[in-house]
Amino acid sequence: MVRDASTTTGPTLATVAREAGVSVPTASKVVNGRQDVSPETRRRVNEALDRLGYVRRHRADATMAAPRLVDLVVHSLRSSWSGAILHGVEEAAHDAGLEVVVSAGLTRTRSGRPEHGWLDKLTARGSSGVLFNLAQLTPAQYVALDQHRIPFVMIDPVLEPPPGVVSVGAANWQGGVTATEHLLSLGHERIAVIGGHRRTICSGARVAGYRSALTAAGVLHRPEYLRLGDFDEAVAHRRMLELLDLPEPPTAVFVCSDKMALGVYEALALRGLRVPDDISVVGFDDLPEARWATPAVTTVRQPLSEMAATAVRLLVRLMAGEQPDSTRTELSTRLVRRASTAPPRGERG
Amino acid sequence: MVRDASTTTGPTLATVAREAGVSVPTASKVVNGRQDVSPETRRRVNEALDRLGYVRRHRADATMAAPRLVDLVVHSLRSSWSGAILHGVEEAAHDAGLEVVVSAGLTRTRSGRPEHGWLDKLTARGSSGVLFNLAQLTPAQYVALDQHRIPFVMIDPVLEPPPGVVSVGAANWQGGVTATEHLLSLGHERIAVIGGHRRTICSGARVAGYRSALTAAGVLHRPEYLRLGDFDEAVAHRRMLELLDLPEPPTAVFVCSDKMALGVYEALALRGLRVPDDISVVGFDDLPEARWATPAVTTVRQPLSEMAATAVRLLVRLMAGEQPDSTRTELSTRLVRRASTAPPRGERG
Repeated sequence: MVRDASTTTGPTLATVAREAGVSVPTASKVVNGRQDVSPETRRRVNEALDRLGYVRRHRADATMAAPRLVDLVVHSLRSSWSGAILHGVEEAAHDAGLEVVVSAGLTRTRSGRPEHGWLDKLTARGSSGVLFNLAQLTPAQYVALDQHRIPFVMIDPVLEPPPGVVSVGAANWQGGVTATEHLLSLGHERIAVIGGHRRTICSGARVAGYRSALTAAGVLHRPEYLRLGDFDEAVAHRRMLELLDLPEPPTAVFVCSDKMALGVYEALALRGLRVPDDISVVGFDDLPEARWATPAVTTVRQPLSEMAATAVRLLVRLMAGEQPDSTRTELSTRLVRRASTAPPRGERG
Repeated sequence: MVRDASTTTGPTLATVAREAGVSVPTASKVVNGRQDVSPETRRRVNEALDRLGYVRRHRADATMAAPRLVDLVVHSLRSSWSGAILHGVEEAAHDAGLEVVVSAGLTRTRSGRPEHGWLDKLTARGSSGVLFNLAQLTPAQYVALDQHRIPFVMIDPVLEPPPGVVSVGAANWQGGVTATEHLLSLGHERIAVIGGHRRTICSGARVAGYRSALTAAGVLHRPEYLRLGDFDEAVAHRRMLELLDLPEPPTAVFVCSDKMALGVYEALALRGLRVPDDISVVGFDDLPEARWATPAVTTVRQPLSEMAATAVRLLVRLMAGEQPDSTRTELSTRLVRRASTAPPRGERG
């Protein structure tokens, strides 16, 4: 049940019920996320809550007694990326007294399974909070989360989320600068970049960082040195071959994910080029595969587990009815120097 | 509530209550996993249930209406191993209409956090079923699961579980045979083995398979060629150095996990030995790191995701009150030939 209004700053449940034209028990059901309410009634109560500036603390108090489950909806569970995210989420959730329900709903969307399966489950169960990883929600999905008053945080959202949505990511622009400055400092000037998808915010920021570093160093940006690899190993492989076929191929390449860097390695091996003797490669992410590759990939580390833990802590605040100071939190990246970068050929003794 | 006894073969709730000397509502609470019952009362009702041969179908029916959550308790979430398990569990659970709560409780035990944290959570929530991965439960933990009548299945249990416990694993012995036969077929006779922990069932079976293959081929097993690497990269590294220091070092080594094979690779590189020119290496698992290493590791593939999916299906049967045909299910392994094995030096042209 909703607590007495004297302990909070919001309107009483009786006020909400009156405003919505429903009984107090019915208003209580909606506030507590119960399912035995008609959609029309739910809509009226939610509108009344909005008009009255009802704060979500009520909801957080009400759910204290219920099992504290939060949902993690991931793009796929097959990657080492999701392993790092899950590790961070699980540990921070445990510290916050929460348990984590994991689903790979977003992959199913692509493979043709029901698009709203995960959303139906979350709303039917009255999830107390959701973390999305690498998600690209539809407008209808944002609306559904809002209607059910389910607080959520996005970890590394694919596209710019709507205003007010809380998200956590890496300092992608700074990471692009760092990677490019490293190659410049080794003496490279013919530096190419293989980005991800055109519209993704993370890829856009990394490529922008690359351009900024070139500009700051007074190195001309050549449009033919910018290719998009769709965050896919095979596509990056083809883009690297295209770069090698240029009249003046690059001596170094900044690849916007470690997975794509592995595709680049294969393309270079195919042409008989050695890393870093013939060409330098910098990746992004610092996934385990970067360490295991030969030569080990110099890369820009994203603190994935820390990003995930930060997202959990932000979600806990939203669940308590608080608003974070900023809707976008960025954690810093750093260069991890390994064996895939060296000065260009002409510069060596 | 428990269904009418006429639809089942078990005793009625009234019989159970009379046998336990408690009221029918109290007996119902215990059967339905409710927490508002004293431990003593719970014990008496459970003993009555056992004496009367009460079948668990009642419980499964009773929980149909509740959210169908099952728990996956893993050793650690940091490894690519757990990623493969989680992927298989999540997909099979989704197909069965279940949702998965993930916790890494068993790691915390080792790092000194509360040993029973995960168990308390499962029992407090009245988990409808649990999957354990790489778990080594204490006798008290088995008793607690039994007392709370929580069905569970073990995926690749570390030690032999008590009689009656349902588990899924790989055909480890056959995998050991396969790895060793592959090396024998290339012409190797000086074949060493680096096992895992002494007491683990998977390591024991793989080493036994190695011995069987040698015996079948008429090759003498040399005790100094058997080392235990504790499933740890650094320990395997040391064991490999010991093998290389023998008066007659091996020309090939079967390493009982891919992770340990990476440690072996480092030891060989340290001594300036090339794989497979100077020495052949076979791993076990077929984790992504085996594919990314250079040279890519020839290994014995364990179908981890399929093992996980099988465990989910067995758990669903237990939750429905059925007993599987066998308490131990083994899925077959197969050799994945890559670049780390070749004939011994003397045999090459």
